[in-house]
Amino acid sequence: MSEILAKSYKNTRYKLDGNGKYSIRQLQIPMENVDEDKQIDFYGNGAIINDFEDKIAEMLGKDKAVFFPSGTMAQQIALRMWCDMKQIYRVAYHPLSHLEIYEQDGLKKLHNIETVLLGEQDRLFTIDDLKKRGTDISTLLIELPQRGIGGQLPNWDELNEILDYCKKNNIRTHLDGARLWEITPYYQKELKEICAGFDSVYVSFYKGIGSVAGAILVGPKEFIDESKIWKRRYGGDLISLYPYVISADYWFDRRINKMETYYNKAKELSKYFNSIDGIYTIPKIPVSNMFHVHFSKDVDNINKILAEIMNKISVGITPYLMETKNTWMFEICIGDSYEEIPKDILEKCFQELDTNINHR
Amino acid sequence: MSEILAKSYKNTRYKLDGNGKYSIRQLQIPMENVDEDKQIDFYGNGAIINDFEDKIAEMLGKDKAVFFPSGTMAQQIALRMWCDMKQIYRVAYHPLSHLEIYEQDGLKKLHNIETVLLGEQDRLFTIDDLKKRGTDISTLLIELPQRGIGGQLPNWDELNEILDYCKKNNIRTHLDGARLWEITPYYQKELKEICAGFDSVYVSFYKGIGSVAGAILVGPKEFIDESKIWKRRYGGDLISLYPYVISADYWFDRRINKMETYYNKAKELSKYFNSIDGIYTIPKIPVSNMFHVHFSKDVDNINKILAEIMNKISVGITPYLMETKNTWMFEICIGDSYEEIPKDILEKCFQELDTNINHR
Repeated sequence: MSEILAKSYKNTRYKLDGNGKYSIRQLQIPMENVDEDKQIDFYGNGAIINDFEDKIAEMLGKDKAVFFPSGTMAQQIALRMWCDMKQIYRVAYHPLSHLEIYEQDGLKKLHNIETVLLGEQDRLFTIDDLKKRGTDISTLLIELPQRGIGGQLPNWDELNEILDYCKKNNIRTHLDGARLWEITPYYQKELKEICAGFDSVYVSFYKGIGSVAGAILVGPKEFIDESKIWKRRYGGDLISLYPYVISADYWFDRRINKMETYYNKAKELSKYFNSIDGIYTIPKIPVSNMFHVHFSKDVDNINKILAEIMNKISVGITPYLMETKNTWMFEICIGDSYEEIPKDILEKCFQELDTNINHR
Repeated sequence: MSEILAKSYKNTRYKLDGNGKYSIRQLQIPMENVDEDKQIDFYGNGAIINDFEDKIAEMLGKDKAVFFPSGTMAQQIALRMWCDMKQIYRVAYHPLSHLEIYEQDGLKKLHNIETVLLGEQDRLFTIDDLKKRGTDISTLLIELPQRGIGGQLPNWDELNEILDYCKKNNIRTHLDGARLWEITPYYQKELKEICAGFDSVYVSFYKGIGSVAGAILVGPKEFIDESKIWKRRYGGDLISLYPYVISADYWFDRRINKMETYYNKAKELSKYFNSIDGIYTIPKIPVSNMFHVHFSKDVDNINKILAEIMNKISVGITPYLMETKNTWMFEICIGDSYEEIPKDILEKCFQELDTNINHR
């Protein structure tokens, strides 16, 4: 079933989602643009990596930064260190946190850290969820935006109420900022304002930024220095990480100022979807560059319809559908690709979708 | 002190050691040679990574292979899995094993695995060391060649006696093959013959091969399949590892057949060093492309002498010296660079060394 979708999607000229095909060009282009005499990093040292770390630390308003091969590694390490500091091996996060559903229980298996799932799978957790749970946790991890529910955000005051509560109760706060760059336009805050309330922050370079891979962890100096020891323990302190650093730095500079555009386009695109009976987005009005598109269960043959439209109009809507309790859904993350679609083709695409779902 | 050496070394035209300057070209060259339409890997899947894994598994004569960002990660995971299988959380290895001295106790901190150090720091461990220790260990890790002592190897019969003993006593054997490619000329064995006695093997691509970074773990199918779960837990299952894979595959093909040359040149170079009073190599006759060069302690100003010669002759001897109990030493790993040195310049270099150490 999903093979039809994947194939149709792949062959389309335009895509709603992303920054163009994941391709070797993500690395070839930055590598072509770097001076061959540039000195490479050696086990985490060297201007090529340290300058980028400093740039991100400064931008996020924290003491220090360290580049990791992955966010999985960076976040587990951050949580372990906060647990060590408080000698409480229990952390709290949303039930759909990356750590809970995508990491094969690394946090539990490698660190024996217990996890507390706050709130429900289909909504953000609230200050009340947190208060109900009590304060016997070392760290609260907050993912902004919460990807598993379409990229939702607490409003600014709610967020700060939660952060204040943690501060008062000696609970450390860690920001899962996998998509942090993407939320400044909604909050209308600088990156450092968003990070200010958190003890540590992880950011990623291959989502909105469109680089190959890689992550950065920022926090207090001693915390980051110790994280480098853990990075070595994990086997993440590679002799050279420059392939990821060069690519991250290159694409960061080229995309960091596009986040407002992506956000506005996401809002625009969500309206197209929501205008069709039997389709709705979560959130209804996006708060970042992303949202989830749901098809009501009673829609027959949605796979077939989507494949046909993609074949006919050559706009890639989605390469897959995932089943939820009451719907079929897929995720949209707006990048550079959306803008390349001519307006008339985009509108034709949604007319076809409406016709095929509701008027056939 | 070592700054003088490092600076003089850096400025030399020729080098005794290595494959030329660690440089961005290690990646630029392979990236220039890869088709931009080549499909990239996605979380460990895709021909670009799986074909290379299959190639190495085949070459090492094992069921299956998985590419890791680092050997640190690959080996800890291998040992953890063997421990889980036997439910004995104790492994044995040489006192100078990479796991013991370079990994910030990752094996202990992440897996609570106890380590048994076999033999002494300045020699290979023997079958007797192993027998004395008893059989209450899950796994024996053997590093071939043993880098910490200049790259020494047990002879073939001793090695097989150890492996047989382990088999009889239900002890798993893991080969730390960080420099495995480099020892086939000495043993006069195929890679698969060397690996045949081991349950699992790790190999590296940035030492003798001269790639950017990266490692492969090979073993039985179920073992490798499970290692991928651990790779995800560690945060080593990056969305894309192709920068390391492309580079590893490229340099592998270009260097794998040079190991005999490197070995012969290492033997030749060791003779030059051993011909000088006050200098000796360990091993005296290299058994791979590597050896350690020791200066007797009573040699005055060895730093100054080395720096002067490097400045004068423009042959890079070493960028550093390390103190041992009775000597100052450095490591040599022969690669492509050695052959580029004109014979007369090389001989002049050693004449100067002899003159400055013994006849001044």
